[in-house]
Amino acid sequence: MNDNNGTVLDLCRRARHAAQRLSQIDDNTRSAALQAAATRLRRDAALIEERNRKDLGAGRAGGLSAALLDRLLLSRERIESMAAGLEAVAELPDPLLEPIRSWQAPSGLDIEQRRIPIGVIGVIYESRPNVTADVAALCVKSGNAVVLKGGKEAIASNSIIADLLAEELCSAGVPEDAVQLIRSTERSDTQAMLEAEEFIDVIIPRGGPGLVRAVAQHSNIPVIKHYEGVCHVYVDSAADLAMAADIAFNAKVQRPGVCNAMENLLVHESVAEEFFATIGPRFEEAGVEIRGDDKTCTLLPGARQAVEDDWSREYLDLIVAVKVVSSLDEAIDFVNHYGSGHSDSIVTVDEVAADKFLDRVDSAVVYVNASTRFTDGFAFGFGAEVGISTNRLHARGPMGLRELTTYKYVVRGQGQLR
Amino acid sequence: MNDNNGTVLDLCRRARHAAQRLSQIDDNTRSAALQAAATRLRRDAALIEERNRKDLGAGRAGGLSAALLDRLLLSRERIESMAAGLEAVAELPDPLLEPIRSWQAPSGLDIEQRRIPIGVIGVIYESRPNVTADVAALCVKSGNAVVLKGGKEAIASNSIIADLLAEELCSAGVPEDAVQLIRSTERSDTQAMLEAEEFIDVIIPRGGPGLVRAVAQHSNIPVIKHYEGVCHVYVDSAADLAMAADIAFNAKVQRPGVCNAMENLLVHESVAEEFFATIGPRFEEAGVEIRGDDKTCTLLPGARQAVEDDWSREYLDLIVAVKVVSSLDEAIDFVNHYGSGHSDSIVTVDEVAADKFLDRVDSAVVYVNASTRFTDGFAFGFGAEVGISTNRLHARGPMGLRELTTYKYVVRGQGQLR
Repeated sequence: MNDNNGTVLDLCRRARHAAQRLSQIDDNTRSAALQAAATRLRRDAALIEERNRKDLGAGRAGGLSAALLDRLLLSRERIESMAAGLEAVAELPDPLLEPIRSWQAPSGLDIEQRRIPIGVIGVIYESRPNVTADVAALCVKSGNAVVLKGGKEAIASNSIIADLLAEELCSAGVPEDAVQLIRSTERSDTQAMLEAEEFIDVIIPRGGPGLVRAVAQHSNIPVIKHYEGVCHVYVDSAADLAMAADIAFNAKVQRPGVCNAMENLLVHESVAEEFFATIGPRFEEAGVEIRGDDKTCTLLPGARQAVEDDWSREYLDLIVAVKVVSSLDEAIDFVNHYGSGHSDSIVTVDEVAADKFLDRVDSAVVYVNASTRFTDGFAFGFGAEVGISTNRLHARGPMGLRELTTYKYVVRGQGQLR
Repeated sequence: MNDNNGTVLDLCRRARHAAQRLSQIDDNTRSAALQAAATRLRRDAALIEERNRKDLGAGRAGGLSAALLDRLLLSRERIESMAAGLEAVAELPDPLLEPIRSWQAPSGLDIEQRRIPIGVIGVIYESRPNVTADVAALCVKSGNAVVLKGGKEAIASNSIIADLLAEELCSAGVPEDAVQLIRSTERSDTQAMLEAEEFIDVIIPRGGPGLVRAVAQHSNIPVIKHYEGVCHVYVDSAADLAMAADIAFNAKVQRPGVCNAMENLLVHESVAEEFFATIGPRFEEAGVEIRGDDKTCTLLPGARQAVEDDWSREYLDLIVAVKVVSSLDEAIDFVNHYGSGHSDSIVTVDEVAADKFLDRVDSAVVYVNASTRFTDGFAFGFGAEVGISTNRLHARGPMGLRELTTYKYVVRGQGQLR
């Protein structure tokens, strides 16, 4: 159990000590501990629901929207799904066993680049209390300790989940301090976490752009940003237009509130009229608001005029900005200028055009003939997901267990000198 | 040629534009351009010497030490060595062709994790003007643009090297803006560089701890620190003591002014007396000052008493702190507590002890039976070196060309939807 009276710095220090021990524990122990934690969450589901009702009551009293209250809710089904998530992570292959490389240097030294846990991961997140269990599982599985800081609206739910995890992990041989939750809701305590560079190796902010920006700005610790996705679909002059309509519709409508949903749709002028004749009615039927450039507004009577600001907005809603372009180059330049470097797709049967788009669009994930919605750790086959990094360094795009590791060089000699 | 009148931000913006074009240029062009640049440095050696004399004159007038003046000096031999360095980098394999991995996701999507340049690298360094050419070559070879900020004491030397490089690279098809040098010596211009997050992807500070700390503190851009090395050699109870003396002597004395030199020597109590009888006279003869704990001072009459502060100091000099420990565990805890996570070595014939040290010491490079002096890109076989990273993320330990790359995911589908 965490010490409610300890300072944030004490709690981070304990996580650092736990990380040193955790890195020496084998995968069987780490995985069995996660299995045990899953069982515990199921067994104590009623207790979790009870604490969750406290958060929901406070949220209702504080005027949280229905959408936010739904994000906060831990139904019996969601608790089951959280437990199943722990088991799924437990069953993944040990990321620390994945080899990097080894070689012999000219001096005869045998050099091994060995995968190791990063150490202590700090995660700052909003609303959804299941993140507490998900992230703790990914960190423990990859041999990392974790310091969690959830939103104050979920404090009772997060606390009981963290308590149950810590207790059960500890019984199963994982240092209990490996999973720490900051329970204070003081801003100064979050700041103390962001300055605890001696004890935390990396900070991962998961939440809205405001949260991510504030964390990046105030942290002395390296940050792996999970920033917004202003994603594009570009319908090329050589597109299969039926496929293009399906992809554009899927990328916008299937789940508009996530970072890999499409925000901007670019259409080559030579196919614009024909393409709009298909996608226009489908968007209209689905209730999608269209904000278009001049040509789009001429061809699609339902569209309203887009303003400059619309081209770089992450709507996270049934709104799409649509522009007619006169060339592939214009499309590429547009994506690189207005996009957020997250996920962008070209629809075309022209392989030269596809290759040019894939080469030149400077985004974490570039697609040809597929929906941008595939950018996540599960769809990529990682079996789990910390989130989608918008950093360029260390981890880019979907982050799985591997991205929670780093390396050291282990060098064996026979007395070599320089 | 750089625009001397442009603001720092303009210069960084031009580097960003150059990076976009540079990433599309093939390795033959990049390498031929570096070869041409090498020829140009040789041809204009007299001009470089002339400008260098300006820096040396100003340095002498400003009271620079003989050691710093020597670091600043560009003799004909050093210019030749700088040119040869450009050629050596040109001949290395293209780091962008090194595969990462590719696979098919369950959805049928073909996913390729493709190595790409980071983009724009900012490098801040002190004194030695050859760094200008070395770093520019590594960046161009790996497809990156670079913004260089050297020390003001080397401004004339750095400027002529950057001018010659930019002109020659440009003639050979590399965007001339790919190599930018900030010529202003105003602190506010360095700060402007550290805040140019729109244009620079990573900052690499190379220099003393003061420089590295200041850069890390004031940068909005991710920093790959090249921080100090407080490196250890631990002589185990099962060490070959002749080998141990050779390694300890080499790690301290061969080149004491570098980050991978040993600063702390730990000796197991069971072999301390015998080991000191060998190493003591060798250190004395080489003029090495010994600062020891109580036991060391008893066994080595020449040692003076160490104070707490001595155990975490990077001397970069013929000074060593020596401690007698009573167990391997004590040695490991000491290294993790007082070391800087750079390079640490155990000398032992006991494989269990070696494995324990290699597993538990949390440093970028851990050795058994070798000198810590091997921690560099050349000794590791990378063929070049940006420096030694003391970061945990992205790049740890010796940084070669590979560490100047990142990746994107290129995904090919046939109309996949979610």
